[in-house]
Amino acid sequence: VGNDALGHPAASVAPTTQARTVLRPLPHDAVRLGSEGWLGRWQRLNRTATIPHCLEQLEVAGAIGNLRRVLDPEVGPRRNMLFSDSDLYKTLEAIGWELGDDRHDDADPLAAAFEAITALVAAAQEPDGYINSYWGRDGRPRWSDIRDGHELYCAGHLLQAGVAAARNGDDRLLEVGRAFADLLVERFGAPDAEAVPGHPEVEMALVELWRHTGTAAYLDLARSMIDRRGRRWLGEGRFGAAYYIDHTPIRDQSEVTGHAVRQLYLLCGATDVAIETGDAELLSAVERLWEDAYTKKTYVTGGQGSRHRDESFGDPYELPSDRAYNETCAGIASVMWNWRLLLATGKRRYADEMERALYNAAAVGLSEDGTHFFYSNPLQMRAHHDGSTEDSPSTRLPWYGCACCPPNLARLGASVHHHVATVTSRSLQLQLFTPGRVEADLADGTVVLDVETDYPWHATVSVTVVEAPGSPWELAVRRPGWCARAEMSVPGNPGPAHERDGYLVAERAWQAGDTAVVTLDLEPRWVGAHPAVDATRGCVAVVRGPIVYCLEDHDQESGVDLDDLAVDRSVAPEAHERDGIIVLTGRGTTGAAADWHGTLYGSDPGPAPAGREVRWTAIPYYRWANHGENAMRVWLPVASRASEVAGAPAP
Amino acid sequence: VGNDALGHPAASVAPTTQARTVLRPLPHDAVRLGSEGWLGRWQRLNRTATIPHCLEQLEVAGAIGNLRRVLDPEVGPRRNMLFSDSDLYKTLEAIGWELGDDRHDDADPLAAAFEAITALVAAAQEPDGYINSYWGRDGRPRWSDIRDGHELYCAGHLLQAGVAAARNGDDRLLEVGRAFADLLVERFGAPDAEAVPGHPEVEMALVELWRHTGTAAYLDLARSMIDRRGRRWLGEGRFGAAYYIDHTPIRDQSEVTGHAVRQLYLLCGATDVAIETGDAELLSAVERLWEDAYTKKTYVTGGQGSRHRDESFGDPYELPSDRAYNETCAGIASVMWNWRLLLATGKRRYADEMERALYNAAAVGLSEDGTHFFYSNPLQMRAHHDGSTEDSPSTRLPWYGCACCPPNLARLGASVHHHVATVTSRSLQLQLFTPGRVEADLADGTVVLDVETDYPWHATVSVTVVEAPGSPWELAVRRPGWCARAEMSVPGNPGPAHERDGYLVAERAWQAGDTAVVTLDLEPRWVGAHPAVDATRGCVAVVRGPIVYCLEDHDQESGVDLDDLAVDRSVAPEAHERDGIIVLTGRGTTGAAADWHGTLYGSDPGPAPAGREVRWTAIPYYRWANHGENAMRVWLPVASRASEVAGAPAP
Repeated sequence: VGNDALGHPAASVAPTTQARTVLRPLPHDAVRLGSEGWLGRWQRLNRTATIPHCLEQLEVAGAIGNLRRVLDPEVGPRRNMLFSDSDLYKTLEAIGWELGDDRHDDADPLAAAFEAITALVAAAQEPDGYINSYWGRDGRPRWSDIRDGHELYCAGHLLQAGVAAARNGDDRLLEVGRAFADLLVERFGAPDAEAVPGHPEVEMALVELWRHTGTAAYLDLARSMIDRRGRRWLGEGRFGAAYYIDHTPIRDQSEVTGHAVRQLYLLCGATDVAIETGDAELLSAVERLWEDAYTKKTYVTGGQGSRHRDESFGDPYELPSDRAYNETCAGIASVMWNWRLLLATGKRRYADEMERALYNAAAVGLSEDGTHFFYSNPLQMRAHHDGSTEDSPSTRLPWYGCACCPPNLARLGASVHHHVATVTSRSLQLQLFTPGRVEADLADGTVVLDVETDYPWHATVSVTVVEAPGSPWELAVRRPGWCARAEMSVPGNPGPAHERDGYLVAERAWQAGDTAVVTLDLEPRWVGAHPAVDATRGCVAVVRGPIVYCLEDHDQESGVDLDDLAVDRSVAPEAHERDGIIVLTGRGTTGAAADWHGTLYGSDPGPAPAGREVRWTAIPYYRWANHGENAMRVWLPVASRASEVAGAPAP
Repeated sequence: VGNDALGHPAASVAPTTQARTVLRPLPHDAVRLGSEGWLGRWQRLNRTATIPHCLEQLEVAGAIGNLRRVLDPEVGPRRNMLFSDSDLYKTLEAIGWELGDDRHDDADPLAAAFEAITALVAAAQEPDGYINSYWGRDGRPRWSDIRDGHELYCAGHLLQAGVAAARNGDDRLLEVGRAFADLLVERFGAPDAEAVPGHPEVEMALVELWRHTGTAAYLDLARSMIDRRGRRWLGEGRFGAAYYIDHTPIRDQSEVTGHAVRQLYLLCGATDVAIETGDAELLSAVERLWEDAYTKKTYVTGGQGSRHRDESFGDPYELPSDRAYNETCAGIASVMWNWRLLLATGKRRYADEMERALYNAAAVGLSEDGTHFFYSNPLQMRAHHDGSTEDSPSTRLPWYGCACCPPNLARLGASVHHHVATVTSRSLQLQLFTPGRVEADLADGTVVLDVETDYPWHATVSVTVVEAPGSPWELAVRRPGWCARAEMSVPGNPGPAHERDGYLVAERAWQAGDTAVVTLDLEPRWVGAHPAVDATRGCVAVVRGPIVYCLEDHDQESGVDLDDLAVDRSVAPEAHERDGIIVLTGRGTTGAAADWHGTLYGSDPGPAPAGREVRWTAIPYYRWANHGENAMRVWLPVASRASEVAGAPAP
């Protein structure tokens, strides 16, 4: 168990052979990202900057000290959030994916850190397997606050870290996790045990541990936790049972609700359980909730969870740009959930949403230097926003008091190559486009592909066959839902590619040296929102490929006020290369607000003044705020029509 | 001191004779509201339903018990918020304005309650004057949490209640308050005392106590508290120094910020101090902050404080309809602040904003039956909003855990007649239009007027002179800023009235029996917002006179979805009488969302389908949610133009 029949280490989500999935993931080492690609550059930055930064900050913030304190109370008082252990485990998981890996030559400092912290974790474990730096000590009994104590949440992250390292050949942390998992089974596994974790996470961790170890009790416990949930066992708390998604059983739930990250993690676990137990009813409930989430409660960036107050999804279509909460962890969770649903069903829409969240909602959380972060991700930042004490700081911060997001980005970055491709027995599906090498064992033999592309900036993806079995197999390349036209030319067949369910497919007996060239449509698109999204009425977003763009104040001509700019939709934006990325420029007008000076509401709105023509510049949303505080906006009022509507006040 | 030279009881805000004001208020008993008018009906409902309900709920919620417990700890544990005393004092203030008053014949039950609770408060006072049911006992030392303890806030409400009752002839609570105020002077009055109240309120209370008693130390303390503030003495707290408006001295402050009610109460106190001390610099700072508040951070309803998270103003133009926090207390505070600025400056804009807040932001807090309340006041409630655990409940509640708003409405209702008219030595200004009698002592003698009107529903205001001195004096009637055309006919002079600074004025030697007839323009108005208000782009509000209208779901034709309705602005809304109020109907279209089914974001927005023509019905915003849970919206998308902008997704 654990690794595949050929001994390849499994990736982060590794359904067992009896799992009901349409697609299979590739092993952990099957994809090597080229360092010049978008994903490869991120993974390298993650390894060289983000993970070391996390290790440093965990020390500074006290998360590591909290575990030392378990061994020696003289270390001083406990510090930081009660769930600081989980920040540490997520960082260990990130290193786990980097361990023992010949993909990189500079993993050693990370390995040393992993070694030291794993030893500390192991030493801090109690004889019965329990481990937590907050609970079970200092007069705080174990399991005394299942709802808000994050005890099982921390346990889940420990298990995931253990699995990651074990898949890369280091079982020590896995053994720590197993002992704890056995204790969880003992404590919560009985059919009449009622405990429901206040913050879901351990469910998917238990399933992955079952996948790695084959110990069925872990899967059983995960399934029980999914099934027990929704009976208001947790009580109301400050924000009500729906906040914990404990208001109704998931099978009966009709809307995603409550704390977005909790809801999304729960749905990851539920998808895993459904896959492994062949529970079609549960999978159908999960897909129904996906429809609610992605057709009513998701930002154009893929961000989710619009409300600051309780970090919740909010009402359908309640998607304000300025007050978008959009926790970075929710963007990461969206990648995780869509990946699981893609494996389960093979439906393209899940790959599309995974890509949207990856390049926008998740990516925006990380700075260009890899060491500054956003926790909350609005789609609009007005000039002079005072974010000094806000959930939406006006600038990226090196760390957060609640530090869940940075190490979550680290573990995603370290495992992001897992999401590039999927397989069935005679087909390989390219889901994400990135330069690199992809190896897969199909039914008739090994396929090795070299992918060349400068996606998402350039439209061509070349797939060259390096090795292939002699018999026919199918290469399938996702045509993203946003891409109206796409072509795939294969040797001897330059005509339009065959398309099936959103994938360009070519089945043939590929020869080494064969190249399939895919051309996507990367023309910038004006995107509008459903009319019920009140916050973006009269506005468009500019999107190119998977990348949502935004206007940042300091990129604009002097005299352009982002709060008084309307875009001219009749002129197509132009793409320009700048610093290795594509920026867009377009035409618009400014000055519509001139007549309103000192007036907030006016009678009899009539036509606005035409305004002054200006040129605007847009950058990828995920790149904003890398150069100091700044106004920004994704949704742009449309010139003439919008101003016609808004009008000017009566004189 | 206290009451005026002729022995009339002073009203709630009673500047001294040396105060620098442009206008003077009338005494408490100068205006008698006709019971058939909008204000009169409210005042009656307040006395017969709201105040008794508050007394009942204060008992149920433990606020009264908390004071009993000061006398007898055996009563049981303290309950409710740490500032529950203030809820009690606000209710006493409300009764205070109703006491000993021949305006009503049924004040007795309230007088009995006042008697009993005043005796309780007096008994609970400690020998040195201190009184608080939370602090100074149970191991919580006095003044140990000036920032978040609300100790001075409670003290302020005690003083205001004492002043109200005293002005109506009952000095007992005033004496309790004075003793406490003397202690405050001793404790916080020294020049080097630094304490700044975390929640402003006591400043305006101290000024009013100075006005009533002539004890200069109270004014001095209020002035010190204003001047000391803004030096970050309070520290950061959870939301930063700006939350407490302690980030910068008020004289240097350029923007209203932080917790809206705290900011507004502080500005009331600052205005009072500026008036009484002739501090032109301070008044100028206050007016500058008013400009910021009312041109960038106020809803069309007059509501303020858009953010739920920290109950703060938010950024300029950040005025979401669905997530509008708009605490009812902020609407009340807006009435209080604008009234003070009107007295100070005589500028019509303050009367206009007072009226807007009164009829909309404050009035919406109270149900038709006078016993159910809104704490938060969004301008949009989507269908099926789950408000069960939300700050914006989807239905009015009989009471709140944090019960500041209901008794705040009670004290405003009991004193609302104070805001009807102002005077200078030879002029009387009618600021609010309500049937009733107005008496005023001008320089040359007493003026008595009978006002007849069915404002805000009907456009005519008749002012008949009942008594007048023989010499000329001026009648001034506010022409609200929203009223483009207004006429005033006076006997023998049917032509257009003279207008000065927004007031229709007629100076003459009025005779008993003379009637001035004012006709306002109550045609419904389409109101648009400044283009920087992103939340309302492409929308209009329907306003008639001072009343902002809204569409409530259950008033609409079947098949009309409030989330898919656009109004046709080319057809003027029609006014209809219904249940004693005016409702509006108009034309619109529905069905623009049809093409978007299952799609949240679409490429290449083009024209929307024309949709089905429908008729909509609008009711006054303040009347919404009197008939169960319901969707509602104030801002309405404009047909054709708006849908042209929003477009439909690509096929």
